Amino acid sequence: MSGWLQVVGLGPGNEAMITPEVSQALATASDIIGYIPYVRRVPDRPGLRKHETDNRVELDRATHALELAAQGARVVVVSSGDPGVFAMASALFEALEAGPAAWCDLDIRILPGITAMLAASARLGAPLGHDFCAINLSDNLKPWELIETRLRLAAQAGFAMAFYNPRSRSRPHQFARTLDILRDHLPQTVPVSFARNVSRKDEEITTVPLAQARPEMADMRTMVIVGTAQTRAVGRFIYTPRRAGP
Amino acid sequence: MSGWLQVVGLGPGNEAMITPEVSQALATASDIIGYIPYVRRVPDRPGLRKHETDNRVELDRATHALELAAQGARVVVVSSGDPGVFAMASALFEALEAGPAAWCDLDIRILPGITAMLAASARLGAPLGHDFCAINLSDNLKPWELIETRLRLAAQAGFAMAFYNPRSRSRPHQFARTLDILRDHLPQTVPVSFARNVSRKDEEITTVPLAQARPEMADMRTMVIVGTAQTRAVGRFIYTPRRAGP
Repeated sequence: MSGWLQVVGLGPGNEAMITPEVSQALATASDIIGYIPYVRRVPDRPGLRKHETDNRVELDRATHALELAAQGARVVVVSSGDPGVFAMASALFEALEAGPAAWCDLDIRILPGITAMLAASARLGAPLGHDFCAINLSDNLKPWELIETRLRLAAQAGFAMAFYNPRSRSRPHQFARTLDILRDHLPQTVPVSFARNVSRKDEEITTVPLAQARPEMADMRTMVIVGTAQTRAVGRFIYTPRRAGP
Repeated sequence: MSGWLQVVGLGPGNEAMITPEVSQALATASDIIGYIPYVRRVPDRPGLRKHETDNRVELDRATHALELAAQGARVVVVSSGDPGVFAMASALFEALEAGPAAWCDLDIRILPGITAMLAASARLGAPLGHDFCAINLSDNLKPWELIETRLRLAAQAGFAMAFYNPRSRSRPHQFARTLDILRDHLPQTVPVSFARNVSRKDEEITTVPLAQARPEMADMRTMVIVGTAQTRAVGRFIYTPRRAGP
């Protein structure tokens, strides 16, 4: 049995942001597993089996990947961005823990990638250039009240913030509530950036002062980045200085 | 005048983690500027000028880079990790703001890289798999009291935490204080990981329960990652589940 399993980050969408070690993993895999659009980013080649799965079946997908590796396959689980940031790595370990003990002896590696918040930050300038936090605004896997608490504490702490999964059709009111909480705790001039499809041809980036931020500026494909009271504009860029305070 | 300036992330040290767009920038540059060890990672070639600068002269370095680009040079400022995370991007925009207004018309781009916390997280499993924050523990550019406040709020929020620049010879007591604050607010079983030289040949990674974490386990080249009350071990890995709460 010489199977292995690698969970890799494909970055935000631009092929020029995929690391060589991830490209190497994709080139030597026997099986590619992941959410449909990510699997489709990997070119076909003879002998490569592709397993396209729907969204929201992360645990089933991870278990399937482990089963294949245990049978001797060279398995790559593809994530967008970085697999360790609101993506497939945690799901893989949840499946590992729930499975046969022997799976822990498998050759498993996580290969990092360019996560959406850092691709967006680079396009904008350097809004995450000081202490910051990353929050998944989806309440699929945690109570909404916990998200509200984290937003308040992060604002008190003076963290810049990056929001993943800010808004979906099934819970449009929650992102409106997020903006209300931010307006209660931060200056109305703090820049809020909406970055959609970063690094792709259809990239769209907008920055507005918090006072003018509207819920409909975000959807599930948008990365939202909130500056701090120190975040500044220079030319077409925004950045958060390294130095804290006024 | 056809100069340009790109601030690029070289990742944590392993060449296989440098993105193709960064390699392309390095290959087409006329001038490479940065802290000595990062500049030395770029191979020499005919016509390439290398400007090695000491640590802690970020603003001078950024100003020099802008001057060269304004004169028509193709300038790459090299950062380790990701330039937007406690690295050169913010310094560049500080220098841009302080310089002649015409500099704002320069062709400036930031190219993201694999930042140390995500490389370390990948090696460990997925400790940053839930909401998390990144804090620079150096008080060179902010008051230590602010760092203490952020640590307390981050612990209350239940964020996993990544610490950059955790400890230096000039302020060894501060990291001891950091651990004390964490012990006041988090379960003693929370895993604390010390990742030194991640992705390099001399990589060293240790994980201990918070109760056993000692200040001397970190130095300036160590990335410290603190889990949450939910962070778990499975096999040789640690991960923070996507689902919050017990």
